[in-house]
Amino acid sequence: MFTMEKLTDQILFDVIKPRPKDSFKGTFGKITLVGGNKNFGGAIIMASTAAVCAGAGLVTTCTDPINASPLHSQLPEAMFADFNDDEQVAKLVEPATTVVVGPGLGDDQQSLHILKNVFAHTSNQQNVVIDGSAITLMAREGLSQPAGNIIYTPHQMEWQRLSGIKIADQSEERNKAAQAKLGATVVLKKHHTEIYTDDKVYQLTIGTPAQAVGGMGDTLAGMVGGFTAEFSQHPLQAVLAAVYAHSAVAEQIAESQYIVLPHQISRALPTFMKKMEKGHDEDHIGFLN
Amino acid sequence: MFTMEKLTDQILFDVIKPRPKDSFKGTFGKITLVGGNKNFGGAIIMASTAAVCAGAGLVTTCTDPINASPLHSQLPEAMFADFNDDEQVAKLVEPATTVVVGPGLGDDQQSLHILKNVFAHTSNQQNVVIDGSAITLMAREGLSQPAGNIIYTPHQMEWQRLSGIKIADQSEERNKAAQAKLGATVVLKKHHTEIYTDDKVYQLTIGTPAQAVGGMGDTLAGMVGGFTAEFSQHPLQAVLAAVYAHSAVAEQIAESQYIVLPHQISRALPTFMKKMEKGHDEDHIGFLN
Amino acid sequence: MFTMEKLTDQILFDVIKPRPKDSFKGTFGKITLVGGNKNFGGAIIMASTAAVCAGAGLVTTCTDPINASPLHSQLPEAMFADFNDDEQVAKLVEPATTVVVGPGLGDDQQSLHILKNVFAHTSNQQNVVIDGSAITLMAREGLSQPAGNIIYTPHQMEWQRLSGIKIADQSEERNKAAQAKLGATVVLKKHHTEIYTDDKVYQLTIGTPAQAVGGMGDTLAGMVGGFTAEFSQHPLQAVLAAVYAHSAVAEQIAESQYIVLPHQISRALPTFMKKMEKGHDEDHIGFLN
Amino acid sequence: MFTMEKLTDQILFDVIKPRPKDSFKGTFGKITLVGGNKNFGGAIIMASTAAVCAGAGLVTTCTDPINASPLHSQLPEAMFADFNDDEQVAKLVEPATTVVVGPGLGDDQQSLHILKNVFAHTSNQQNVVIDGSAITLMAREGLSQPAGNIIYTPHQMEWQRLSGIKIADQSEERNKAAQAKLGATVVLKKHHTEIYTDDKVYQLTIGTPAQAVGGMGDTLAGMVGGFTAEFSQHPLQAVLAAVYAHSAVAEQIAESQYIVLPHQISRALPTFMKKMEKGHDEDHIGFLN
Repeated sequence: MFTMEKLTDQILFDVIKPRPKDSFKGTFGKITLVGGNKNFGGAIIMASTAAVCAGAGLVTTCTDPINASPLHSQLPEAMFADFNDDEQVAKLVEPATTVVVGPGLGDDQQSLHILKNVFAHTSNQQNVVIDGSAITLMAREGLSQPAGNIIYTPHQMEWQRLSGIKIADQSEERNKAAQAKLGATVVLKKHHTEIYTDDKVYQLTIGTPAQAVGGMGDTLAGMVGGFTAEFSQHPLQAVLAAVYAHSAVAEQIAESQYIVLPHQISRALPTFMKKMEKGHDEDHIGFLN
Repeated sequence: MFTMEKLTDQILFDVIKPRPKDSFKGTFGKITLVGGNKNFGGAIIMASTAAVCAGAGLVTTCTDPINASPLHSQLPEAMFADFNDDEQVAKLVEPATTVVVGPGLGDDQQSLHILKNVFAHTSNQQNVVIDGSAITLMAREGLSQPAGNIIYTPHQMEWQRLSGIKIADQSEERNKAAQAKLGATVVLKKHHTEIYTDDKVYQLTIGTPAQAVGGMGDTLAGMVGGFTAEFSQHPLQAVLAAVYAHSAVAEQIAESQYIVLPHQISRALPTFMKKMEKGHDEDHIGFLN
Repeated sequence: MFTMEKLTDQILFDVIKPRPKDSFKGTFGKITLVGGNKNFGGAIIMASTAAVCAGAGLVTTCTDPINASPLHSQLPEAMFADFNDDEQVAKLVEPATTVVVGPGLGDDQQSLHILKNVFAHTSNQQNVVIDGSAITLMAREGLSQPAGNIIYTPHQMEWQRLSGIKIADQSEERNKAAQAKLGATVVLKKHHTEIYTDDKVYQLTIGTPAQAVGGMGDTLAGMVGGFTAEFSQHPLQAVLAAVYAHSAVAEQIAESQYIVLPHQISRALPTFMKKMEKGHDEDHIGFLN
Repeated sequence: MFTMEKLTDQILFDVIKPRPKDSFKGTFGKITLVGGNKNFGGAIIMASTAAVCAGAGLVTTCTDPINASPLHSQLPEAMFADFNDDEQVAKLVEPATTVVVGPGLGDDQQSLHILKNVFAHTSNQQNVVIDGSAITLMAREGLSQPAGNIIYTPHQMEWQRLSGIKIADQSEERNKAAQAKLGATVVLKKHHTEIYTDDKVYQLTIGTPAQAVGGMGDTLAGMVGGFTAEFSQHPLQAVLAAVYAHSAVAEQIAESQYIVLPHQISRALPTFMKKMEKGHDEDHIGFLN
């Protein structure tokens, strides 16, 4: 039997510390996001927005060229690459602190080709967040899990596909056993989201039905990616903090809104994260790049 | 003789209830919007923005590819499909809780082809909002009314075309008779908008001339679509609430503005709708998707 | 000798009146703007934004197709047409209450072709605002003044080209004589902008150097267009009110800003114009379109 | 031995003065920015946004055509040119008060060709800001320094490439000697950014690690460009003021944010700069263009 550990805001204070004075953008990691086909461009844009606003140092978005313009219209901070250019994607995946693959990727042959290319270029020093249709494709096509510190962010149906455990049978024991077999972190998105790790199972007890909006999961994947790149010394803590922060910010917005638009969470992150480092000193630094 | 029932804000409290704790985005319906040709892309963008901000669970916009970029520039929450791809549009229309067709669709042969494709794939379990040039095309081309819970949102000239009743002759009796023949809900947009239903005729007594701005009707169509998808248990109530909320929000904005831009109404909806659920409990839930 | 009449805020109160209760978008005119080549798309976007925010009923922007996406990204309320499609431009120019031609039009052969097409389709019942490179083209190519209530909005160099009066020689007397010969309204943009009309010469005594920013004139052209479409019963008064409002809003913004971005003036118009109608009653109306 | 002069906010008061009453947009200079390949469009957009918001009179952005739409989506005030059109770029570089080359330019053969074209058309009367990959290309390809008042804005690795001094060896003495050999101003971006000039070395002692975000340097390059165009009588003072203002604004934003998004600095400039001119009179002027 497992006892789930309920997450509290302590995880935020543990992870979100004042930035070192002599930091530069490289200090906060590189993140490469891959997704957004011709139909689902919004998904990878929302994930990328989350990564930038969370504070990842350098953010590159590999997506269909149709999405370059709307990406840069709202997020000039991100760099763009054509996700059909295997060589360029490989060059962007390899040096990344964190790779996020899946938001809006789709599940056709093109999607599969891109996913395989990404998986062929990750390494064990990296965090790899696998989300959405990337999970579906892995399960359907029987792809091997790539190298890396793997973090899955499935909803219950995607978890069924990946683990083979039907939604009705997804007990903590079975989920934990499936996680152990994968050797990965699993963020199982549901009412009271659960995070399965090698050592423990964590439960999120906050959140609001105002989050039941398309794109909310893409934003979470981007935040998990952003946090693991930025706080890369403690990647598991970073995952837990991202999951907690996502719902904590949503709750604050939902105090005055019937629904929360996913990008609102991202845009609120800089202010929210500032509050988390309170009690620490702030110093000035002049490194610009 | 009919006695029109004047709508009051009670309709908002009847419809906009706290979301159930264990809801997920599927709880709030799927909406597929079809419109926006090369010239009138703004119309379908405004309708889609209204649907997202109203809280529909999953929103897909079928439009001319030229509109994909500006759609995602301001509304990454919506998915995109090429409205010229008959097969894809059919696949998106069939599972939708609500279909909205017409905003910015145009009235040429391409528009007609798209409209026929949509009409061929609706079913009686769905809400189908028919707006703008879709109404004109139906009347001009003598198209049969499609399957579904049909909701027309004509202005007076479009109603003339559809019903054959000249504007000067559009009395409540004649309008009601035409509505009965159609077996549909008719939202007749005018000074004191009237909603004709099988059982009753409702009248809107609020609103402001600050709403006399291009795009206001597209936003209303999107809100009617969004509300019927989200509050699908009571589609007629949802229509009435959407019509009322549209003008109620506009009135609030018009207290400090000479004109109301349509997208401002959409963006104000999450806050407005939150106020409507007041008096109910709020609880937290963590289901993310 | 002329005595210039100094404009005061009385012109705003004279023109900006509460909208009639039973108004609809057609009440406030149609405006067709033509401009924005591949390089200067921002100019026609800024002019169109001004027209929409000023409250013109229906706004159509004829421009290079490259500008359609950024137009709709920030201004879904405007309709788009390809300014290279002579037939479509003609169909949009003919029924317009006001035509604005010139912002970002450029001065090459394509620009000239488009300008001639516009000029061939205006009529005496319309207001025609001729701005920027359209003025330069007229002078350089010796184009005849088109039909319509013509309003020129030159800066001093453009006025030199059009009138033949060198900047150093642009006295009120000479300017008035040139205006009389043209039989048009001339808004001569300069330190203390002057408006030459058949009967009088008006002078603007407000404004701020914070307005010395690229795009400020495009915004003014769009406001002059928007006001003449919306307040079409008194087109000269509408011109004067637009010129005055443009600088009055800029002065307000400049109280807290070193420079004023042109689009900020447009976005501030709905609130500014609301204040101008103060003292009048407000009533509700439900006409939506 | 050098004694670095620490910059204080006095530099802001020295440079940012009330605008003259009879100014027009030409008073504040022309700036031409060149950069933004297919992947790095956001960089040149951020630099251009900084230039516009700083108050440069006329801003033209020469970039890959893929970036035209997102540029105009968020910054209609800037003009666009295709950076592959050598002739047009030359025509835009030659009359500019300031040229900024490098942000997002990339370092491939196309980038090199564009850079050479820019360098072939600058003259000694102009300020030329050389940033990012333009510095890398110069060093790698052994390009001669172009004509102009040259301002380099390297980070430490770029400075190593340009000067040949390894990062660990970048002492003030060596840097100053390298600067003297170049005969240019060098803004060396690092913890406590240093500005090397013919006469002195200045040090920035403000700034925050919240600035360690991708795009921060592009924004600085745009500000340096904007200030030198606008305050062209004192280009060195303008550089110093731009560097100081960049971090001063960032510090203000960082009081409530964990990170600062680069475009937030630009958007805050008009308000920030207004405060700097306090104590001076404000007068009205009506020159519009």
